[in-house]
Amino acid sequence: MIGLFLFKYVNDKDAGTDRMKQIAGLIQEGSRSFLKTEYKYLGVFVVVMGVILSAALGLKIGVTFVFGTILSGLAGIIGMEVAVKANVRTANAAKKGGLSEAFPIAFRGGAVMGFMVVGLALLGVSLIYWLTKDPEIVLGMSIGASTLTLFMKAGGGIYTKTADIAADLVGKVELSIPEDDPRNPAVIADNVGDNVGDCAGSGADLFDSYVAAIMAAMILGGTLPIQYLEVVPLVYAGLGILASILGVAIVRVEKGGDPGKALNMGTYVTTIAFAVLTYGATVMLGYDMKIWYCNIVGLAAGTVIGMTSDYYTSINKPPAKKTAEASQTGAAISILTGFSYGLISCFPAFLGIGIGSAIAYSFYGVYGVGIAAVGMLSIAGIIIAGDAYGPIGDNSKGIAEMSELGEEVVDITDEIDAAGNTTKAITKGFAIGAAGLTALALLASYQEIVKRLVGTTVVFDLMDPLVMMGVFIGMSVPVIFSAMIILGVSKNAYRMIEEIRRQFREIPGLMEGTGTPEYSKCINIATKGALTELLPLIVFSIMATLIVGFVAGIKALAGYLSGAIFSGFFLAILMANAGGLWDNAKKYVESGYFGGKGSEAHKAAVIGDTVGDPFKDTAGPSLNTLVTVISQIASLFAPLFIAYALLGL
Amino acid sequence: MIGLFLFKYVNDKDAGTDRMKQIAGLIQEGSRSFLKTEYKYLGVFVVVMGVILSAALGLKIGVTFVFGTILSGLAGIIGMEVAVKANVRTANAAKKGGLSEAFPIAFRGGAVMGFMVVGLALLGVSLIYWLTKDPEIVLGMSIGASTLTLFMKAGGGIYTKTADIAADLVGKVELSIPEDDPRNPAVIADNVGDNVGDCAGSGADLFDSYVAAIMAAMILGGTLPIQYLEVVPLVYAGLGILASILGVAIVRVEKGGDPGKALNMGTYVTTIAFAVLTYGATVMLGYDMKIWYCNIVGLAAGTVIGMTSDYYTSINKPPAKKTAEASQTGAAISILTGFSYGLISCFPAFLGIGIGSAIAYSFYGVYGVGIAAVGMLSIAGIIIAGDAYGPIGDNSKGIAEMSELGEEVVDITDEIDAAGNTTKAITKGFAIGAAGLTALALLASYQEIVKRLVGTTVVFDLMDPLVMMGVFIGMSVPVIFSAMIILGVSKNAYRMIEEIRRQFREIPGLMEGTGTPEYSKCINIATKGALTELLPLIVFSIMATLIVGFVAGIKALAGYLSGAIFSGFFLAILMANAGGLWDNAKKYVESGYFGGKGSEAHKAAVIGDTVGDPFKDTAGPSLNTLVTVISQIASLFAPLFIAYALLGL
Repeated sequence: MIGLFLFKYVNDKDAGTDRMKQIAGLIQEGSRSFLKTEYKYLGVFVVVMGVILSAALGLKIGVTFVFGTILSGLAGIIGMEVAVKANVRTANAAKKGGLSEAFPIAFRGGAVMGFMVVGLALLGVSLIYWLTKDPEIVLGMSIGASTLTLFMKAGGGIYTKTADIAADLVGKVELSIPEDDPRNPAVIADNVGDNVGDCAGSGADLFDSYVAAIMAAMILGGTLPIQYLEVVPLVYAGLGILASILGVAIVRVEKGGDPGKALNMGTYVTTIAFAVLTYGATVMLGYDMKIWYCNIVGLAAGTVIGMTSDYYTSINKPPAKKTAEASQTGAAISILTGFSYGLISCFPAFLGIGIGSAIAYSFYGVYGVGIAAVGMLSIAGIIIAGDAYGPIGDNSKGIAEMSELGEEVVDITDEIDAAGNTTKAITKGFAIGAAGLTALALLASYQEIVKRLVGTTVVFDLMDPLVMMGVFIGMSVPVIFSAMIILGVSKNAYRMIEEIRRQFREIPGLMEGTGTPEYSKCINIATKGALTELLPLIVFSIMATLIVGFVAGIKALAGYLSGAIFSGFFLAILMANAGGLWDNAKKYVESGYFGGKGSEAHKAAVIGDTVGDPFKDTAGPSLNTLVTVISQIASLFAPLFIAYALLGL
Repeated sequence: MIGLFLFKYVNDKDAGTDRMKQIAGLIQEGSRSFLKTEYKYLGVFVVVMGVILSAALGLKIGVTFVFGTILSGLAGIIGMEVAVKANVRTANAAKKGGLSEAFPIAFRGGAVMGFMVVGLALLGVSLIYWLTKDPEIVLGMSIGASTLTLFMKAGGGIYTKTADIAADLVGKVELSIPEDDPRNPAVIADNVGDNVGDCAGSGADLFDSYVAAIMAAMILGGTLPIQYLEVVPLVYAGLGILASILGVAIVRVEKGGDPGKALNMGTYVTTIAFAVLTYGATVMLGYDMKIWYCNIVGLAAGTVIGMTSDYYTSINKPPAKKTAEASQTGAAISILTGFSYGLISCFPAFLGIGIGSAIAYSFYGVYGVGIAAVGMLSIAGIIIAGDAYGPIGDNSKGIAEMSELGEEVVDITDEIDAAGNTTKAITKGFAIGAAGLTALALLASYQEIVKRLVGTTVVFDLMDPLVMMGVFIGMSVPVIFSAMIILGVSKNAYRMIEEIRRQFREIPGLMEGTGTPEYSKCINIATKGALTELLPLIVFSIMATLIVGFVAGIKALAGYLSGAIFSGFFLAILMANAGGLWDNAKKYVESGYFGGKGSEAHKAAVIGDTVGDPFKDTAGPSLNTLVTVISQIASLFAPLFIAYALLGL
């Protein structure tokens, strides 16, 4: 509802000059064509999976699975449609009315995404629960959402970084033409990438954690004798949407104001409002106050992880500055420094998840952990809004540059873009933390499902050799997944680099600005590469889970899931923060320190940034979803593992 | 005994011209001065720790702790003394008799180290066991050895990379003077670094794993009713030394032969001889054949991990070649490619450890895991020999260059050096695998100790929130340790770079070769920096372990140890293999591919190599020892944790 209202707000704005419309049109077309191709592939995959699931686990699971994929896919489409509309309108508003007019368009564009995602998710979960009264059927929908998300996150991530790296390496480094220069054949693919990778991807990402967390908490609540526990997650999630609406409503920037501060203010207001609203509801509905405590623990853990990401990636903080300083000694030391800070940044996150889940457990057992995950994710509305705001700002800057709207307009969009980089880092930290807690809740719900099936609690003893073996094998999955996906980006970028070089070589007048680049060829390389690199990886992850389950049984699988959480969570944080850090270290140098643009330090920082690109935008953000997918597959197939596993339990 | 014989063999060789003696003297002096300074610091630390341990846990533990540090320190000193004698003699023999004369000196120099280390270790363990009949007292010695090793590995690692990076960045990159050029003030520090980091460090590294594995297996054997189980580890280890002697004896290279193949042959012969010897002993002494199976499982797992390292780092294999190829697209893609292969290389290692320990467990429970670790480490004699051979070859090349012995001689030493790089990679993989298995055995012996103290088996349930919290906190320790140690290297290298630049600026005629560089200033920076960066880190790791134990109790600590094993093992393999890979990718480019030396691809590959340097030579190899140290501290303090922990068990 709110989503539709905001959509109309954005759509009613003026899209600017013809040149702007043309460029925006190209981006829109590229984005749509990517989604179309992707959804075509995915359609086949979804139908096949749906049939397999129906055969193996019953029609209800198969149908809810397909339903989940449709909702998740819808969230992606809507988010992207709004984004491609908002970006050009933001650029136009910046031209006409400056920051105070441009900012709300970008932000409300993001908010459409946010509300659509949480709205669809909550609607879907409520609907299935209302029809079946069985949270384990919701698992079918959740797994559908997660699988599609994995494709969108990882596929979009490959797409966006392929285009970004290729465009930069040939454009900026080899030919010394500016970023977002329309002569560069990869420039449209680069801008499309921001949409498909960051916008559609991120929205879908939190969609899946959101659904999974609510579902896990409902399953855990369902095992307890108190009736209302199963419904609490839905109530809290609903209040989270209310709180987010409040937060979005108060975000505004006066002329000369700081958009970054405004965004943070929105998040803080939402957080506090959510705490107050849930407190009120807990008291009024007569819920156990301990549930509320767990809720707050989750919220606090999320805030800690988000703030850590902020500190370790922000351009004004020591880590980015020191990494920038290290660039003076060359790229190697710069990379080592950033990597080290990325490693250190894992510590608060580990503490947040470890201690947070232990405290939540002490209040209400595993159900408490589930509620903590829900608490953390309930404010997803505003988080996604801030996240989707980023690529809109980035794109509006691109459009402003390509349409030659003048330096002043570019500066305004630059300011909007810069604020987006910080919120993006915080959001990523938050999303990873939420996914980590969700994964723990999923592990607990896996144990509950096993308990119900076997009739007794199966202990996952670390000293059990099958469990320990499972941990080591499970750790491999995110490790190999990240490696292969990064190699996929390199391979694909290499293909596109060759294509860009070819165009500059063969198209007459391209360098002088008289020839027309063949944008679509680059878009095709990015699209095709993203999908062909990805499919084997996802099949591998699912197969590995099934093999461990069918060969080594449910205990080994518990170890396997834990191992995947350990290495997945670790790599996700490391990659997100190190990547964000290198990005901002480069920006710090560009803002005039240590020789500024064009200096040796700048060249070194650019190398660091390029290393960080697939870290933070491809591998890192896919890992949460990967872990969520395999955790849910384990729960879903638990009955079959118990019946058929080779090595017994 | 064999060690002394080989020492005499090396010492009797001629040390060459006066210029060679002078340079070798400088290296020897620098190495000794580092060890002297380090041991002075450590002396204080050891005495303080000895007193604390005696007070907290009884005099026997305190005394054996000090004994362990002395043995480990001795192993370091001896290895280094031999290395600094062997390097100059190798260079001289290369001048006089070519490869077939030079190679045995380098290799037998390494073998002295190998036999000294295993001889001292086995002697120490046997002595204490003979006197006390209590393997838990051996724990005191083992922890002494591990703590000192951690200082030597990590301190030496910081030293060597500080000097290496600083020498390269100013020398090769800024001033374009060749590697190992005597005009470079850091050149002696660089060569000293090879000794203190690689030679003394590696020897001590396996010393500590070796002792810890034997000790853990003895403790595990002691809990079982069959008498001889406690002695089997000593018997197998003794046979391992015999097998290594055989292996060393057959290693020789004819004129025009391949030193790399000869080294590998030695390892294979040792492995097979060890399998045969232990089989014979098991039959003759009437041991359960299942013990022998566990032994072989360990040996096989070690071989898998070593071969994986070989494949992923070797200059002739696809990963190094593809990384070299990626260097054409710039440093960023080269680093991403190498990093990805490093990640992938963790998979076989995870499988090796996970499946290996599960199989060993299926034969003989946790004792089987302990025996597997012993089996893997029993051939440490030849492994260390091959490992110590590396820096001797490297140094001999340096001496040949600095003494201007002519191109032919440099080429021979180069060949000796190149063979060392491969064995080094295999050895590292082997050492990490052995440490991983040892850490699992230590975890099991921790559980046994807790069981004896509490009177019942305490289950380390993964779903116990304290255990899970422990895992996340434990994972942080190797992560932070690696980050801080890499930052330490960067910081220290930065100091030395400033000093080198100052000398070239202020010492007249230095660039022209008429001025004399102040080598000692660089040596002092490396020495002081290594120790001041390190001490807080080691204290932090020990304190973290004690805090978790005293606050959250023994279950959380079990999770903590597991977490440290997970992230430590992962990072150790990743860093060792990625580092070795970048090194050889650079060498591949230097051998003439993709433009060869001086090309853009070469510059990119050099950046990758520099990133890899602290990975493979500083952080990576310290992690095993770190995990061993905290595992043993947990076992040692278990009685106090049980008595005083805040949150109970």
